[in-house]
Amino acid sequence: MASTETPVPEAEKVAAPPHEAPAVKPEKVEPPPEVKTPAGAPPPRIGYFALADVVLRFLLFASALVAVVVMVTSKQTERVPIPFPPFLAPVSAKFNHSPAFVYFVAALSVAGLYSIITTLLSFYALLKPGCYPTVLSHFVIFDVLLLGIVASATGTAGGVAYIGIKGNSHVGWRKVCKMYDEFCRHIGASIAVSLFGSIVLVLLVLLSIYSLSKKIPK
Amino acid sequence: MASTETPVPEAEKVAAPPHEAPAVKPEKVEPPPEVKTPAGAPPPRIGYFALADVVLRFLLFASALVAVVVMVTSKQTERVPIPFPPFLAPVSAKFNHSPAFVYFVAALSVAGLYSIITTLLSFYALLKPGCYPTVLSHFVIFDVLLLGIVASATGTAGGVAYIGIKGNSHVGWRKVCKMYDEFCRHIGASIAVSLFGSIVLVLLVLLSIYSLSKKIPK
Repeated sequence: MASTETPVPEAEKVAAPPHEAPAVKPEKVEPPPEVKTPAGAPPPRIGYFALADVVLRFLLFASALVAVVVMVTSKQTERVPIPFPPFLAPVSAKFNHSPAFVYFVAALSVAGLYSIITTLLSFYALLKPGCYPTVLSHFVIFDVLLLGIVASATGTAGGVAYIGIKGNSHVGWRKVCKMYDEFCRHIGASIAVSLFGSIVLVLLVLLSIYSLSKKIPK
Repeated sequence: MASTETPVPEAEKVAAPPHEAPAVKPEKVEPPPEVKTPAGAPPPRIGYFALADVVLRFLLFASALVAVVVMVTSKQTERVPIPFPPFLAPVSAKFNHSPAFVYFVAALSVAGLYSIITTLLSFYALLKPGCYPTVLSHFVIFDVLLLGIVASATGTAGGVAYIGIKGNSHVGWRKVCKMYDEFCRHIGASIAVSLFGSIVLVLLVLLSIYSLSKKIPK
């Protein structure tokens, strides 16, 4: 059956693909850079910024969550000597015994909630590259405010925790962490994570500023 | 003498100024908006931004200076009862008895020095409007870092000062401010001024971001 068909000239077989190719090739080669962004052109760079933004916001959420959870679960009960029978009473150390730690938990909870919302919105902006700078310029205002709040909360908790570790002989404030070692480890870890969260917020603000300043016409 | 001169035709007298005027008028009218900036065109707005930048940086300098001076001059000596003769001993309360206040003074001193330098550079940029965005984009990085430092210093000092005022009955830290009232007033005023400085830093960062985002080509 195959032999009865009219033989196609070899010249036409070879020539036809090159004739069609020039029309198809530019269309096939150009789309990949838009989708996979392998080249370093301006539109893909914004894509990288948006990706870094999402990653940093997720890190902020994770650090805020860890800081709050570690702080809230810091309760420790120790048997403390008392001057009357039974001479040993269980006394608990909890984070809400100090207003500084309550402020810390409140500030980090706000940071956590804010970062959930902005991670989702930033991820949405990542899928629609065009609207990234618009979304960004609104977030960065709250990022700056939150940086101030988280940094001050970290400082407040750190200042009180330092007194707990070292005490203050000038005013007679005794050390707490000798007895409540587990409690203090929780507090210290929480403050360290919160410091990491502050650094992430600084990076977020700097990323936004860099991204905005790159768009200045030169 | 005047009557012997050849009379100039009135038509030429009137016609000559209109002939020269179209060439001179556009040159005379255009320069004033550049120098006096009466209209709301983009270049004058940058001038207002630069002016606001200088004013805010000066406010930051003033608040940092006041906060440091008030904190450092907070020494108060009181006669405290002791269990052996002479039964009353002079005991001083100084800011450097608490590491939190030392950190506060260090951070605010850095902020003060930084604000002197940037006020001068920003004032220089005000006189040369063209270089404002370039100067700005470098300052804003340090502004953000300084915001974190000043906010955390304010929080640290505030946390320790709160214990000084209220004490903490759970861990037996007694109130200090009942005895050292003058000392505590100094500390409180210094923290309030530093909080104002933090707000000025937030405004500075937001001003920079707004100024940068206005230049996005739309």
